[in-house]
Amino acid sequence: MNFASDNHYGASPKILEAVAAIGQAPAPAYGNDPVTARVTKQLGEIFEREVAVYPVINGTTANALSLATLVPPHGAILCHAEAHIAVDECGAPEFFTHGAKLVPIDGADAKLTPAAIEAALKHFQKGFVHHAQPAAISLTQATELGTVYAPDELTAISEVARAHGLKLHVDGARFANALVGLGCTPAELAWKSGVDVLSFGATKNGALAAEAVIFFDPKDAADFEYRRKKSGHLLSKMRFVSAQLDAYLDGDHWLANARHANTQAQRLAQGLARVKDVSVAHPVQANAVFARMPSALAAKLRKAGAVFYDWGAPEDGTVLARLMLSFATPEEDVAKLIEAAG
Amino acid sequence: MNFASDNHYGASPKILEAVAAIGQAPAPAYGNDPVTARVTKQLGEIFEREVAVYPVINGTTANALSLATLVPPHGAILCHAEAHIAVDECGAPEFFTHGAKLVPIDGADAKLTPAAIEAALKHFQKGFVHHAQPAAISLTQATELGTVYAPDELTAISEVARAHGLKLHVDGARFANALVGLGCTPAELAWKSGVDVLSFGATKNGALAAEAVIFFDPKDAADFEYRRKKSGHLLSKMRFVSAQLDAYLDGDHWLANARHANTQAQRLAQGLARVKDVSVAHPVQANAVFARMPSALAAKLRKAGAVFYDWGAPEDGTVLARLMLSFATPEEDVAKLIEAAG
Amino acid sequence: MNFASDNHYGASPKILEAVAAIGQAPAPAYGNDPVTARVTKQLGEIFEREVAVYPVINGTTANALSLATLVPPHGAILCHAEAHIAVDECGAPEFFTHGAKLVPIDGADAKLTPAAIEAALKHFQKGFVHHAQPAAISLTQATELGTVYAPDELTAISEVARAHGLKLHVDGARFANALVGLGCTPAELAWKSGVDVLSFGATKNGALAAEAVIFFDPKDAADFEYRRKKSGHLLSKMRFVSAQLDAYLDGDHWLANARHANTQAQRLAQGLARVKDVSVAHPVQANAVFARMPSALAAKLRKAGAVFYDWGAPEDGTVLARLMLSFATPEEDVAKLIEAAG
Amino acid sequence: MNFASDNHYGASPKILEAVAAIGQAPAPAYGNDPVTARVTKQLGEIFEREVAVYPVINGTTANALSLATLVPPHGAILCHAEAHIAVDECGAPEFFTHGAKLVPIDGADAKLTPAAIEAALKHFQKGFVHHAQPAAISLTQATELGTVYAPDELTAISEVARAHGLKLHVDGARFANALVGLGCTPAELAWKSGVDVLSFGATKNGALAAEAVIFFDPKDAADFEYRRKKSGHLLSKMRFVSAQLDAYLDGDHWLANARHANTQAQRLAQGLARVKDVSVAHPVQANAVFARMPSALAAKLRKAGAVFYDWGAPEDGTVLARLMLSFATPEEDVAKLIEAAG
Repeated sequence: MNFASDNHYGASPKILEAVAAIGQAPAPAYGNDPVTARVTKQLGEIFEREVAVYPVINGTTANALSLATLVPPHGAILCHAEAHIAVDECGAPEFFTHGAKLVPIDGADAKLTPAAIEAALKHFQKGFVHHAQPAAISLTQATELGTVYAPDELTAISEVARAHGLKLHVDGARFANALVGLGCTPAELAWKSGVDVLSFGATKNGALAAEAVIFFDPKDAADFEYRRKKSGHLLSKMRFVSAQLDAYLDGDHWLANARHANTQAQRLAQGLARVKDVSVAHPVQANAVFARMPSALAAKLRKAGAVFYDWGAPEDGTVLARLMLSFATPEEDVAKLIEAAG
Repeated sequence: MNFASDNHYGASPKILEAVAAIGQAPAPAYGNDPVTARVTKQLGEIFEREVAVYPVINGTTANALSLATLVPPHGAILCHAEAHIAVDECGAPEFFTHGAKLVPIDGADAKLTPAAIEAALKHFQKGFVHHAQPAAISLTQATELGTVYAPDELTAISEVARAHGLKLHVDGARFANALVGLGCTPAELAWKSGVDVLSFGATKNGALAAEAVIFFDPKDAADFEYRRKKSGHLLSKMRFVSAQLDAYLDGDHWLANARHANTQAQRLAQGLARVKDVSVAHPVQANAVFARMPSALAAKLRKAGAVFYDWGAPEDGTVLARLMLSFATPEEDVAKLIEAAG
Repeated sequence: MNFASDNHYGASPKILEAVAAIGQAPAPAYGNDPVTARVTKQLGEIFEREVAVYPVINGTTANALSLATLVPPHGAILCHAEAHIAVDECGAPEFFTHGAKLVPIDGADAKLTPAAIEAALKHFQKGFVHHAQPAAISLTQATELGTVYAPDELTAISEVARAHGLKLHVDGARFANALVGLGCTPAELAWKSGVDVLSFGATKNGALAAEAVIFFDPKDAADFEYRRKKSGHLLSKMRFVSAQLDAYLDGDHWLANARHANTQAQRLAQGLARVKDVSVAHPVQANAVFARMPSALAAKLRKAGAVFYDWGAPEDGTVLARLMLSFATPEEDVAKLIEAAG
Repeated sequence: MNFASDNHYGASPKILEAVAAIGQAPAPAYGNDPVTARVTKQLGEIFEREVAVYPVINGTTANALSLATLVPPHGAILCHAEAHIAVDECGAPEFFTHGAKLVPIDGADAKLTPAAIEAALKHFQKGFVHHAQPAAISLTQATELGTVYAPDELTAISEVARAHGLKLHVDGARFANALVGLGCTPAELAWKSGVDVLSFGATKNGALAAEAVIFFDPKDAADFEYRRKKSGHLLSKMRFVSAQLDAYLDGDHWLANARHANTQAQRLAQGLARVKDVSVAHPVQANAVFARMPSALAAKLRKAGAVFYDWGAPEDGTVLARLMLSFATPEEDVAKLIEAAG
């Protein structure tokens, strides 16, 4: 019963087969191969637009390289205080940007709002050489608390971005889960809502190590390729990463995987909500369930074999359990957890 | 007939099977899994010593992270002028070290000598704050020109390193090829000859994207783990990289692969040496053949289907062709190339 | 009537004379001169301890070099959300530390408290490679709002620092003003209260461009000299900076200058407190007065010739005026301002 | 008898008076003062063109900030192997550029030639992501060996720069000495010969700590101001630096100072050339004399009170003595040295 993280699961059979199918025959290195080209084409079709696509191995890299391309060393990046880029990347954005500043902003359910962004921007005077210069907003979709931004929310944030000359970056490590939860089109959740660059995740949703950085205006990509190379993220046998993305997109595998995870999250949330003294702490809109429960119950669940993290320190004899559902979480594990809790 | 690079070939069936065998079951993330632990154990046995091992995805990363761990921002790294780290990594060592200086040193067959290193060191005054401070020597094994350093050559260089307080790093992207060419033990080609840190390559020799940074004194590893994370090189599903290394080492797969490549290199070199107007330019000690040939012959070979790079610009109607042999180069391709040249 | 900043005033006659007295005769460059040595000796006596002293040209540099010496690239620096290093240095600490993270902490009167620091530290798991690792606390003395930390407050903070393995840095751009305000000894306001490194300011208090970084344990200085050189802050004719510090310390010139500024601040605060609709917003403990006043009054004062900044945006028809007093603010300017306000 | 360096001398009386004249009256900080504006105006007139001017404190900073503005982190800077930026700045250019690569080029008399630059460029493939991308040429005027580039030599180099899309930077720490030596106009030695950015030195020629970065096309200055601030090189009381430059330019003080130094260099060179077993090693075109002499003679001169550096290691019982002449070297010291040598 592993609910620790969607990155604890391995890779889907379909994706592993695609990797194996590459075999040992030679092909041009460093992404100049047909598989990589096909991924770019596929993403262009899915997002209904010409896009620049760069495969990388994980989300931290996708985020840090995106932001370094958009933000100068003297720039600032506005993000939620609980954003993965702010909390869980050991300062990767600061390293890749050569010292830009992350500005943490509070907000319910790990979400930024236009008002909170505007308030944060008031502390920075444009063109004032003593202040880091805001250059981008980065938000997480789905968020670190399992919530999502609907297209109209994205649009409202992107309007603030435009008004202040900022680029809008989305950390989409769980983009598929957000998309399935919202039921809109990929384009609506991206450039149609004003998103400039997307870290399009696959690793947490069935790949073994693959994400794609997508620039919706290829001109924004600027010197991305040099940054990717200089940071060691240009693979010689890139087609092994591209093959994962290829299989991930093929036949809506990505959406099926995310749908499974989200469905299990709904089942789990509904099951836990019926348990005495358990409450679900944030809207369940993707593949995470945050459940406040007595510490004793958490201990009992762990004894029954459940693996999950506490979010923050215990409070008044309760813990906030984070339960992540993945593309591969067995349905019976969800049932077993609910039963163990009941 | 692909002789362009050993990184043009895909991955060996054995390694692809090992990756597929990981499957989709959950396991602890970020390298805290049994496969990664097993790789460390295996490398300890192979190198006859307790070692600190960090899997990464490619050689540029292995080199840059190693050097950044050994060399401060105000440090200097002595290397051959044709070293991969100096020429082909777009400044990755400078990025990861936060601005350390690479000192290019000339030498025949892409090899450093103690005398050349001593001469270069004369330009740096120890403790003189205006000079970058030499902190490491980095050499490539096998070299960019397909030659190797024998243990006594390594030992002589490491004595210079010790005398000046420098660490010795080896870029072993083709370590297996060097080892097979020399016929010594891994330990003799590493710590027994004074090597402190080794970028132990697998990608060019059958893996899809896997290398291991090996510190022969674990204390030298210092803050390597933070650097790996901060640069985006800590994978959540690290076991997919470790599985490659695991299969690579298992049953001497790595040595068999390298032996195949080196054997083909010898065959090719011998075959080409018999061709009129063709001469082999550097000792063939690993899996590369550098052949000087008339430009017309190079054109003819390409017309016959051979893929390879010219090394440098044409001279007097000749080119220096670099012909790389890999773990998977078909024997018949070598025969066909010789025949086409004859 | 310039109350805009204490750095708007020029340099004191005594300090300018000392600079001129250096003349054109030759002396060893880069700080290897007798004046620089004398400054180190003087500061050792003033702080009652052997210290390592490095003259630099301004406070941003003193802070950024200090922090870069104490904090690795994967480190974090805890500071007040209004700290100069966080707000007004365009990301200099991030640049010099190669991407360390500043953690902004709220607190009344721009002051950190042990409880607030402990709360912030809860978000960082020690040894957890995904989190930036807290390595230093930096506080400002006197603060950006003109308040000071008494020795017992410093001691309490330094105990938190010790307990968590953090170094304590003090941005003392207005250290003299704090010292005079508190009436304790320099040592009590430094290492006796657990301070490890001090940016000892002189520029705002009579010098033209001079500060000293003081390490109370010379071992902490580590590679400071290389960092200073590499960042362009080692002056060839360093004795012109040292001469400023020499004169600054000589005959308690620094304390006299600060006393003048603080005395004027008290006079101004008392005068303004008596004005209708004006309130003093923070304790006046050094050389700054923050006065909330009707916008109309602020406009009237400016019309009368007063120069000062508003702190933040207007609220309900009032502004928060920041009035800085310097070593050279004429007494009559203070009187005139009070009169104009009355 | 100090011939160690032109930076060993203090500052000229005229410049010290100008600094003192600033006094303690308030003025806008950070360069928004009339003195700084006047320097920009003066330099525009001297160079016969609208220029962007940024005062800084020393040559390392002027060079490193210039180059960081022109060259991206993945860029390369071509310079002579003996260039100050390559040898004597502890890697400052690498730090400020965030890891760009310096490409050392050999050449007689410390001078670059178009042919040598073209040869070096052959190693870099444009747009090839594995190679650092050449972005600027930097040359030193006068060079580290006391030679100069005439306008036609500069023009030839700048044509190479243009042809390859590179910017041309000049480290003019001794620009005045070169100008006086050549007898051309400042414009001819700058933009009229294709120079894009000039580190215009004053410190070595009479100032206490002042240089000006001059962009001959203000658009090239880009984000220079943020870089200057972020690296701690924006002084609050900038007018004390500007006042030095103001006095330096006023009444051709800079040219008179350089003329004195150069004249003494000629006298010294002529005197030494007549001494048995002494030969002058490089053309004396500015304010440096390199004299090869028996080690015994060097020892004798030092015993007589002469201070100077050996350049490189002794060879065959001789040393290469570097003798620097400054704006303030007494004529009698030159006579005494010649006499002591004779």
